[in-house]
Amino acid sequence: MPTYKAPLRDMKFLLNEVFDYPRHYASLASGENATPDIVDAILSECGRFCEDVLSPLYQSGDEEGCKLENGEVTTPKGFKEAYAQYVAGGWQGLSAPEAFGGQGLPASLGLFKQEMMGTANWSFSMYPGLSIGAMNTIFLHGSDEQKQIYLPPLTEGRWGGTMCLTEPQCGTDLGQVKTKAEPQADGSYRVTGTKIFISSGEHDLTENIVHVVLARLPDAPKGTRGISLFIVPKFLPDENGDVGQRNGVTCGSLEKKMGIKASATCVMNFDDATGYLIGPENQGLECMFTFMNTARIGTAIQGVGPAELSYQWALDYARDRRSMRSLSGKKEPDQVADSLIHHADVRRMLLTQKAIAEGGRAMLYYAARLADHMVEGHEQGDSKKAEAYDDKLGFLTPILKGFLTELGYEAANQGVQVFGGHGYIREHGMEQIIRDTKIATLYEGTTGIQALDLLGRKVLMMTQGGAVREFTLKIANFARKQLTDKRLRPFAVELLKLTAQWNVLTVRLMLAARKDRDVVSAAAHDFLMYSGYVTMAYLWARQAAVAADKLEHGGADAAEFYRAKLATAEFYYERLLPRAQSHATSMLSPTKNLMQLDAEHMAFLG
Amino acid sequence: MPTYKAPLRDMKFLLNEVFDYPRHYASLASGENATPDIVDAILSECGRFCEDVLSPLYQSGDEEGCKLENGEVTTPKGFKEAYAQYVAGGWQGLSAPEAFGGQGLPASLGLFKQEMMGTANWSFSMYPGLSIGAMNTIFLHGSDEQKQIYLPPLTEGRWGGTMCLTEPQCGTDLGQVKTKAEPQADGSYRVTGTKIFISSGEHDLTENIVHVVLARLPDAPKGTRGISLFIVPKFLPDENGDVGQRNGVTCGSLEKKMGIKASATCVMNFDDATGYLIGPENQGLECMFTFMNTARIGTAIQGVGPAELSYQWALDYARDRRSMRSLSGKKEPDQVADSLIHHADVRRMLLTQKAIAEGGRAMLYYAARLADHMVEGHEQGDSKKAEAYDDKLGFLTPILKGFLTELGYEAANQGVQVFGGHGYIREHGMEQIIRDTKIATLYEGTTGIQALDLLGRKVLMMTQGGAVREFTLKIANFARKQLTDKRLRPFAVELLKLTAQWNVLTVRLMLAARKDRDVVSAAAHDFLMYSGYVTMAYLWARQAAVAADKLEHGGADAAEFYRAKLATAEFYYERLLPRAQSHATSMLSPTKNLMQLDAEHMAFLG
Repeated sequence: MPTYKAPLRDMKFLLNEVFDYPRHYASLASGENATPDIVDAILSECGRFCEDVLSPLYQSGDEEGCKLENGEVTTPKGFKEAYAQYVAGGWQGLSAPEAFGGQGLPASLGLFKQEMMGTANWSFSMYPGLSIGAMNTIFLHGSDEQKQIYLPPLTEGRWGGTMCLTEPQCGTDLGQVKTKAEPQADGSYRVTGTKIFISSGEHDLTENIVHVVLARLPDAPKGTRGISLFIVPKFLPDENGDVGQRNGVTCGSLEKKMGIKASATCVMNFDDATGYLIGPENQGLECMFTFMNTARIGTAIQGVGPAELSYQWALDYARDRRSMRSLSGKKEPDQVADSLIHHADVRRMLLTQKAIAEGGRAMLYYAARLADHMVEGHEQGDSKKAEAYDDKLGFLTPILKGFLTELGYEAANQGVQVFGGHGYIREHGMEQIIRDTKIATLYEGTTGIQALDLLGRKVLMMTQGGAVREFTLKIANFARKQLTDKRLRPFAVELLKLTAQWNVLTVRLMLAARKDRDVVSAAAHDFLMYSGYVTMAYLWARQAAVAADKLEHGGADAAEFYRAKLATAEFYYERLLPRAQSHATSMLSPTKNLMQLDAEHMAFLG
Repeated sequence: MPTYKAPLRDMKFLLNEVFDYPRHYASLASGENATPDIVDAILSECGRFCEDVLSPLYQSGDEEGCKLENGEVTTPKGFKEAYAQYVAGGWQGLSAPEAFGGQGLPASLGLFKQEMMGTANWSFSMYPGLSIGAMNTIFLHGSDEQKQIYLPPLTEGRWGGTMCLTEPQCGTDLGQVKTKAEPQADGSYRVTGTKIFISSGEHDLTENIVHVVLARLPDAPKGTRGISLFIVPKFLPDENGDVGQRNGVTCGSLEKKMGIKASATCVMNFDDATGYLIGPENQGLECMFTFMNTARIGTAIQGVGPAELSYQWALDYARDRRSMRSLSGKKEPDQVADSLIHHADVRRMLLTQKAIAEGGRAMLYYAARLADHMVEGHEQGDSKKAEAYDDKLGFLTPILKGFLTELGYEAANQGVQVFGGHGYIREHGMEQIIRDTKIATLYEGTTGIQALDLLGRKVLMMTQGGAVREFTLKIANFARKQLTDKRLRPFAVELLKLTAQWNVLTVRLMLAARKDRDVVSAAAHDFLMYSGYVTMAYLWARQAAVAADKLEHGGADAAEFYRAKLATAEFYYERLLPRAQSHATSMLSPTKNLMQLDAEHMAFLG
């Protein structure tokens, strides 16, 4: 059975050499304890946990799935024990405030942890992952009492959490939420309704589950401005904060899904369940979405993880499996045939995976610094700072979430192609990566929704193109500095062209959209993908710049690592980046080609 | 549960209006009975069978899968009854020679039948589909006695057939085949070895299964020139041609796969099984591959079918499901939200599916005419004619197989995106289309192998670019005629540019490959995809030309159908075809970006 290896070398290259996290952490209040030694120890320890405990449960979890019997959900064999180890290791509180039992380390460390956990076993990682969403929401919008009751057991991992948004009639369009909350004399509420697609809605890993639920108060305004947020625990906490009376929230059924089968996706029935208002009345959506940017970066990880995992396994296979001879002559004349890795087309697939995994990781680690500042703003009660960084992050998150999950899915598919027919067989684990990864392009807002968020909201509405101008200025400033270096010049020249083009495209779309609002939706997908390719190009150039510098000044130590970085950057620029141009052409094409056909004439099926 | 509707209107448009099949059939010996009325009746009847019998078994077949117990494989509930109906309807012999009980109709009708069956239920269609491969091989290479014994029950469908090529150590590289065949005193052979990935290797649909097996004679030359072909029946036929003694071939296990779970994919153990040589000694590969082009077109159908199915279901969903408001203003003000179909980005996804389904179908029907001529050559013993058409087909088949299965897979993925999170849930059937379709890019030669076959073999080695010159000449001649028509001119201008570019790219690769053989493998994938986009552009222009003509001269009858054709052609040219340019750029990039990295430096995982 294949296993996962934590890519610590690459992670440390990004942290220490490309983005200078040591200095970044030193600048943060929460970074006091995040010294290089401690960060190193945490990453290594986390890597070991992922390799030894989570990775072995990857395939068995998929085979077995979750089971619902008498309202109780059983996770696959080994999950309970692995989760107990996770709790014992204090992993859930890594980036949580010390006041509630956490280790108070920077938020980014939590993302690096999630990357490794999610790559080794995405389904497993969803249980603590969703919980962190609930923790963040309670931390920011809960009353002091609510924080005192819920945060310590959540931070410990003894309790789990969920986010209950989707209902049968609506997912994206949350203005259609129908779940009701009736106020009671004691200040609590009775919550009634059905929520679907609730990850970790019911399971056997924790002694309690804290649901964070969108619902409507009586007489609330229609649409999105009439939704409030409630805490609805599975067991009501007693006066000691321990698990008390069973609440009226139950799992009606488990969804049968394409993948992430070890993650319990529940239909949750709220039947006069006791709930507690969190945050102001009718402002539930804003409260729920405060941490949306970090949640979406969390999902963007699901683009990078599968690319890494699929790459590791495909690379192993391509080194071992022999088929045919290399076109440029026998490479292993003593063998019956050459290894797959000697065929240029197989290398094209492997390097596509590598470029996506490492380029995507660089995009995540770049954004994670901003997330640290945003969280610090919140923790210091400095909402201006929090908002400023949230805005910067807000431009990047749809790109990361939309683009990286699409490319991660492509990488997972390339991995199967490297295996040929064997990739289609379950025992190799490769097709599972496809199935597990597909969800990433759908939840936390589909790729289409990310695209609309990027172009419609972040670029055109909120900043009139300013977000693109600001980001491309940063890229261009970087690129200009590399023009004099022979090895880096090709990247720099290309980046300068692209930054100019990105602005031109933005302006053209802005002008077109003034006359024809459909332009935004029609162009959004191509704009998102274009933005993704350019952003990844920037981050490959950043990596290449460090690699070139190290090769020149760093001696022969690890020279092969840096040469591989330069080679992969070259591959990315020459073989993947050209796709940006087809998106540029498509996005400018007239909306007419999408809108002219009447809905009833889209098929003639008699 | 969603169902399938046979797209008869579109099929008849292609047959009668675009490709003039009535005249084509009139020119064939086998076309005598393929009058327009009979073709119509066959397609309608087949469509009904697919809609009423096969489509309802689509999801249940996936849920249940096949079971192996005591060496016997049970197909999912309903498959046996459906197969009996298939046999009773005489469908298996549709295009088979009358001499062996077939209806002697043109081969293309068999492809149209396969398209509908495969769209309604790909797994089901594989049982008779593989059998047709065996029938073709025996018809062409079997002795008269072998034909008399095997072809009648195979043509009837009472017996099934398989093609046994792959072994654990080799799939693509069949020179590594190890299965042995020892000659016996009675002229038969003892076949011993293990074959894997054998579709329909064992099942309960037919009373006998005829395996066509690649194996080595003692002292056969090494590699591909030492492989012979054998018939190894599950039950040896007795002197009356009935099922006799059980032979030494058994199903060792069923593969657990990503999809096509209702199709039994078997590990087959041959243990001193009695086999009969078919065709000349050591020429088994040539015999096996005589019908490779038609087999690969059969697989190309698996690009078109899923695109059609996923489109039909996504379109239904997009018309029903309401979410948010259209950016250009409320379209259904009385409803809580607008239907998905009013959002431009959703239309982009739907039209991508439609353009792939209808454009792909046109590519298939274009090639099917050539297949008719090739088969006629074989049937008339006119090997020169057969070869000439096989060569024409040989250029198109890797394009059809490689490009259409990749785009069909994309279309299946777009369908899931239209459904959002619901697409990931099994009950909607959308994720099954992804899982079922992925195999199409892997078997019958992966996309990478198709790409090498196209660029390396068909274009560079066999014709020194002549295949491209010949095909683009045809395209250019067509395009030039459309230049004067205002509606068609944009398509024609683009086509003329592309035909020139295709030739330039071919020559540049040819020159580059003379100095660096890796160029072929490095450029193959992009060349394949580029060729596919241009070929599809040609076939969209062909459809647009007919539609424009009908709109001008045909009166208002069915005007909406033709307008939809023009609109979809426009969408294809403006939003999908630009991708060809990114492939053009990538294919010319240096091989260095693929080859410079040593195999051991492709990852640094400590």
